[in-house]
Amino acid sequence: MYKAYLVSTGTELLLGKTIDTNSVFLAERLSNMGIKVVGKSIVGDNHEHIHNAISLGINSADIIITTGGLGPTRDDLTKEVACEVLDCPMVEFEAEVNKLREYFHKRNRNMPEINLKQAMFPVDAKIITNNNGTAPGMYLNKFGKTLICLPGPPHEIMPMYIQEVEPLLQKDYGQNHRQSAVITINIFGLGESQVEEMLADIVEDPRGCSLALIAKEGEIQLRLTAEGESTAHSQSILNELVDRIKSVLGDKIYGYNEDTLPVVVANLLLQQKLTLAAAESCTGGLLAKMLTDMPGSSKYFWGGVVSYSNEAKTKILGINDKNIFQYGAVSEPVARDMAVQIRKIASSAIGVSITGIAGPEGGSKTKPVGTVYIGIDSQRGTQVKQLHFVGNREAIRTLSTKSALDWLRRLLLKNEV
Amino acid sequence: MYKAYLVSTGTELLLGKTIDTNSVFLAERLSNMGIKVVGKSIVGDNHEHIHNAISLGINSADIIITTGGLGPTRDDLTKEVACEVLDCPMVEFEAEVNKLREYFHKRNRNMPEINLKQAMFPVDAKIITNNNGTAPGMYLNKFGKTLICLPGPPHEIMPMYIQEVEPLLQKDYGQNHRQSAVITINIFGLGESQVEEMLADIVEDPRGCSLALIAKEGEIQLRLTAEGESTAHSQSILNELVDRIKSVLGDKIYGYNEDTLPVVVANLLLQQKLTLAAAESCTGGLLAKMLTDMPGSSKYFWGGVVSYSNEAKTKILGINDKNIFQYGAVSEPVARDMAVQIRKIASSAIGVSITGIAGPEGGSKTKPVGTVYIGIDSQRGTQVKQLHFVGNREAIRTLSTKSALDWLRRLLLKNEV
Repeated sequence: MYKAYLVSTGTELLLGKTIDTNSVFLAERLSNMGIKVVGKSIVGDNHEHIHNAISLGINSADIIITTGGLGPTRDDLTKEVACEVLDCPMVEFEAEVNKLREYFHKRNRNMPEINLKQAMFPVDAKIITNNNGTAPGMYLNKFGKTLICLPGPPHEIMPMYIQEVEPLLQKDYGQNHRQSAVITINIFGLGESQVEEMLADIVEDPRGCSLALIAKEGEIQLRLTAEGESTAHSQSILNELVDRIKSVLGDKIYGYNEDTLPVVVANLLLQQKLTLAAAESCTGGLLAKMLTDMPGSSKYFWGGVVSYSNEAKTKILGINDKNIFQYGAVSEPVARDMAVQIRKIASSAIGVSITGIAGPEGGSKTKPVGTVYIGIDSQRGTQVKQLHFVGNREAIRTLSTKSALDWLRRLLLKNEV
Repeated sequence: MYKAYLVSTGTELLLGKTIDTNSVFLAERLSNMGIKVVGKSIVGDNHEHIHNAISLGINSADIIITTGGLGPTRDDLTKEVACEVLDCPMVEFEAEVNKLREYFHKRNRNMPEINLKQAMFPVDAKIITNNNGTAPGMYLNKFGKTLICLPGPPHEIMPMYIQEVEPLLQKDYGQNHRQSAVITINIFGLGESQVEEMLADIVEDPRGCSLALIAKEGEIQLRLTAEGESTAHSQSILNELVDRIKSVLGDKIYGYNEDTLPVVVANLLLQQKLTLAAAESCTGGLLAKMLTDMPGSSKYFWGGVVSYSNEAKTKILGINDKNIFQYGAVSEPVARDMAVQIRKIASSAIGVSITGIAGPEGGSKTKPVGTVYIGIDSQRGTQVKQLHFVGNREAIRTLSTKSALDWLRRLLLKNEV
């Protein structure tokens, strides 16, 4: 099994505020490829510490991936130090200089001379294009090791790794890993211990697979790995286990691997050629935001109203203010009205509403913080659900939004909207 | 300034699913004490890798804290390896053996012999009591270094650290820590290299301070640390530097330390008793979401419309569809109309609009992906700005939203809304 070592640089990663999500992302991708991450070091922007960490990486692994420290400032040392450890001089890459100039030109800014160091690489390095920032990465095979330097910002590193680095690693290190088969099952609407209890028999006897349960933002991920004698063998072991799990968890499983709830719902809407409009109160636009995270969302999302104040509910949505007065803005009748009205205004197939108390203030005895009503209106009529969540404001808002998406998903699957 | 190095052990930390929250917790506590974390290593349960990581720690810091690997199984190696690196033999601590026996007795279980290794420590180690598990920790001063070994589970480590380890560190390393003063300056609207260029003189001559520049989601954080002869002295050095930086960066500085753009804008709205309504297109609710992240947001946020489709723009906002037809939905006149109309509907003090092309599809020669219009309407009239962002869909949406907030912030500061 090939080995990798990760080195993250950045003083901010040592202050206890910022989590080094890059190395978590990389470790997962590498593990999925069958490459073993044997260690990680996180160091500040300090020449000696970066040097020591990279040396340690080179002594313990085949592949060393650094993240961060490719910026233009004098604090940004990673690439320089890595090349020093491997004893590789750097030269200016003409094409990269041009790209940098173009980057600044597009933004109507002059390029500071200091940015030129971002175009310096060892002569035999492969350049990894960065479409979201100025710092290109590099991939270098040298002395039987592979050194990969990537920038720090997660939105830069992720596409670079997926589009360019992983295929290169696949080519150089991909031969022997294909034996294992891996899948992640994504579950919504059950707690960690509930899933564990429901799957007790399977956990007891996973028949050649290993299982890991991960709780994450109100969802449960179940990660399965099968190690058979061949890829096909592993895959068939895995498929059998997935079938057993499916028969227990049913539609609590909303997807696999990279699937997210909004993506799954979007695909169902697209398949069924349905459009959606949203009326949100306590979630303040989070549902609309999630539904428009994906490109092409205008095909299924008409738009929505963030009816945060009562006046927004009456004025834009035309909610009967008697209902607000009599039952309160967080109530079954208001959730119903919101869903019906937004669907009417939008002439969309579906109207979804969320109204609730996200806290920390605003709760009462009968309606404590975490009380949330979700409404769904369609040609099949209007349905409203009352839910109770426990957690802080952010957790309640996220769970409310995901619960609305998950309910809609289950209705769409059963053709009940 | 005293230095610390953290070593986390545990194979699960290298699979990319589990985040090493222990080291984040420890880094924050240590930083708050004025101890600088110079690096972290995360390694699997492997003798050689643990040895290398601890050696690296001993070479680079005064204090080495390990977490994990204190359990009873043969995988649990950390304490043994750490004592090997420091060349300290271990002996069985009678009192700890008794505690272990009692722990098992209370649970009506027999103690497996293998658990006895949890009672082995160097003769001069201080034992750190673990009230939530079987593995005690240790605190050892040796050869001018401090080695601290703690167990892995977060609910065990946290009370142990807070109740016993921190007071010991306070005694051994706490004398001179109160002297340093730290601040983070939060900047929006400038690139990393621009900030560095503008502050070149200050970076060159920071007069007793150290500076670190961190780029994060379109923002720049500038972290300053002053080390004077007393806390008051450090603070005065720091204040002087902050003044110099303020005079250069002016209102590009939006806040300090934990301040975020939405919080700063919310506070300005509250102070000036102004209410806001939002009409969003490409950002799909992200502005409303950010403005309602804070509790009590109903005091300044009326609500909004996510006018994602053209129909939503005409039907809810009453935008003149001639403007959409003639100039396009992403245009100066439509941004203007959106801001004016949402303010009119809401009878709010301010109307903010965002319309743009978040991509990856939908761009054209004249309006490439990343073209965004932001409108602000108030009693002072309507202003519209055209901006261009480069990046992926998420980056463009985030930058658009933050740019709207930042523009509003600067107008509020100048009483221009």
